[in-house]
Amino acid sequence: MARIVQKFGGTSIANLDLIKKVARIAVASAQEGHEVTTVVSAMGRTTDELIGVARQISRSPNPRELDMLLTTGEQQSVALMSMAIQELGWPARSFTGGQAGILTESRHGTANIKQVNPEAIEASLNRGEIAVVAGFQGITPGQELTTLGRGGSDTTAVALANALEAERCDIYTDVRGVYTADPRILGEARRLPCLSYEEMLELAATGAKVMNHRSVELAMEKEMPVRIRSTFEPDDHGTLVTHRSASPEYAICGITIDTNQVSFSVKFPPAEDGHKPLESVSSLFTRLTELHIPTDMIMLLAREDEPLQELAFTVDHGYSSRVQAMIETIWQKPKGVLLTTDSTLTRLSIVGRTFTTRPEMVAGVFDALHNAAIPVQMVATGDLRMSVLLPTQHAHQAVKLIHERFDMDKELRVA
Amino acid sequence: MARIVQKFGGTSIANLDLIKKVARIAVASAQEGHEVTTVVSAMGRTTDELIGVARQISRSPNPRELDMLLTTGEQQSVALMSMAIQELGWPARSFTGGQAGILTESRHGTANIKQVNPEAIEASLNRGEIAVVAGFQGITPGQELTTLGRGGSDTTAVALANALEAERCDIYTDVRGVYTADPRILGEARRLPCLSYEEMLELAATGAKVMNHRSVELAMEKEMPVRIRSTFEPDDHGTLVTHRSASPEYAICGITIDTNQVSFSVKFPPAEDGHKPLESVSSLFTRLTELHIPTDMIMLLAREDEPLQELAFTVDHGYSSRVQAMIETIWQKPKGVLLTTDSTLTRLSIVGRTFTTRPEMVAGVFDALHNAAIPVQMVATGDLRMSVLLPTQHAHQAVKLIHERFDMDKELRVA
Repeated sequence: MARIVQKFGGTSIANLDLIKKVARIAVASAQEGHEVTTVVSAMGRTTDELIGVARQISRSPNPRELDMLLTTGEQQSVALMSMAIQELGWPARSFTGGQAGILTESRHGTANIKQVNPEAIEASLNRGEIAVVAGFQGITPGQELTTLGRGGSDTTAVALANALEAERCDIYTDVRGVYTADPRILGEARRLPCLSYEEMLELAATGAKVMNHRSVELAMEKEMPVRIRSTFEPDDHGTLVTHRSASPEYAICGITIDTNQVSFSVKFPPAEDGHKPLESVSSLFTRLTELHIPTDMIMLLAREDEPLQELAFTVDHGYSSRVQAMIETIWQKPKGVLLTTDSTLTRLSIVGRTFTTRPEMVAGVFDALHNAAIPVQMVATGDLRMSVLLPTQHAHQAVKLIHERFDMDKELRVA
Repeated sequence: MARIVQKFGGTSIANLDLIKKVARIAVASAQEGHEVTTVVSAMGRTTDELIGVARQISRSPNPRELDMLLTTGEQQSVALMSMAIQELGWPARSFTGGQAGILTESRHGTANIKQVNPEAIEASLNRGEIAVVAGFQGITPGQELTTLGRGGSDTTAVALANALEAERCDIYTDVRGVYTADPRILGEARRLPCLSYEEMLELAATGAKVMNHRSVELAMEKEMPVRIRSTFEPDDHGTLVTHRSASPEYAICGITIDTNQVSFSVKFPPAEDGHKPLESVSSLFTRLTELHIPTDMIMLLAREDEPLQELAFTVDHGYSSRVQAMIETIWQKPKGVLLTTDSTLTRLSIVGRTFTTRPEMVAGVFDALHNAAIPVQMVATGDLRMSVLLPTQHAHQAVKLIHERFDMDKELRVA
């Protein structure tokens, strides 16, 4: 008998028929002898709808009050899911994040989990119940309700699996696993039977939406095996994320795109006469860190002999106006400083192991894009990925070209 | 500066415009210098809608899970109300029932409040905030979410007013106060400027829907003044409920009707041969008490010399099938026992002081009904009211006749 945690996102429980379907999946697992904890999100687009309602009252609703509002979404899901499981004749009990022992810091809207006290869930499992837990939410030591940010239900599921020392965490979603590229934009995309935490982290960070980044980190910390699988084809094995790499022989496990990035470029004269541009760069990134604004593709060209030095990076579209204001404040438009932003670009990322040690991979990407006359605006290369910024209208074609170039539609042999 | 508690029911906050309107009422009170605690119900028909959703999953949803579901209704209201108050520039903070210190017993669906710990609310008021509290709900010492039953938000408001030692509890609703009869069925019905707790209790118990029975009891315990007033005409004084009677000179303060009562009559032979019908009557009422099923108009005719003795009473329609099954089990249909039920009747109640000591009032009621040839099926008289059971199709006419008979449309002089 294994202890497992299952997570079902909003699309998996978008209506009452789907709730009943998910209840059957949970009960089937329990009938196989597993101890089952089921983590659910709010139904369908409930969270977005509640945010819409709040915005009708206030353009920028108080974050504490917004959490008070949003946490009702998952609370409704767990109550209904628990009823649906009971209706199938299996005992079940619902838990809010707080009741499930999910303790967080008090940063409303994006709270991190500080501690999980799984005693109440363990007692429920010991009674033979399916424990149904509200994802995406927690409670502070002062009994304030918090949310964990987008994709937070994945984090709840993995954190609980860790705390319960579960054998596995199953992330049920609306796709059959992790693919070499988004199958909606590339029919030849192949599903990966397995994947390492590091590879999954890069895919999640660069645009694969199947699992949230923080939850992969948590799984990696405790080496918790995570299976990404389909709610609609629950017999399918999906993709197993462990320490084992997807691509023992190939370097690339997946191509992702993110159309939601905005590029910033600041050109400024080199240091002279007490004007210290690198100090400004440093204070910009200090401020971005304080505000928890993630940046990507950071590049600095600061050669002393160039007439203009350049700082470039990308941020998520949602942060764009704040970042622009920040740059304008810090540089206060001294003579010769040029700020350019571009939101018509897409970041395409190729994720694989040992990218920097295999320059032929980098060359292959450039060659494929160059042959198709696709312009590249920026390139950044890290240990596990290479990202290129290119015009959005060429993004899907670029995915196809690179996928073909590296024979990613061929079956991979798994070590 | 007075400390006041305001309560707004579902119809008062049925949509976002009304939430903004109620926020203005709360802020206006705060601007007058009051310390304001605002208790709100779920918006509009949310609670009924959630029950409807639960019923699509289970015909008889688990009461604990139903409470988990229903408590989200008020939680959404307090978040939105708090945002709306903040949007007007006044500080506010929302509280679930549990956060507000409303501790209840664990009887899900109809939990009684055991204790109120108002420290968190007091801290909020001391910070100058409007405290916005979810009505209808509480928490058990084991952190289980509970609901207080229909009308429970009134109970929350009065219990908080008591615990906060407020100067007054204002129950805002969709009518302008308490009337001598339902103004929707009798245009001449007159609003009562004031009313005693005892009179309000009888009105609430017999069909007046403005305030729930338990909340009136709580107000009476601490002599908390309660003002019933209109959300839509907030400048209107409404009806003040205190120890002061509505009718110092007249005996009657109001006429109520309840179309939701079902009458039961059990006829059985007198005791003989070890068959002890009164023991059966006693066990029936013991069982009804255990199941918290309220009865009214209980009558027993048990004269030894009658061929059949009779027990009669009424219950709310919702309990009717359970009560019928109970009677059939207890009597197990011994020879000669006759069970009759009738759900086509309406209970009309005339509420006033010292009913039993003024037989001319009773005579007046009978005379008025008799002159109009309205048949009366059962009559019960208590200290503060007289109830008659008559065919539902004559109920409105009967209200009018009795209202006229006692000149209840005339202005009462208040002592």
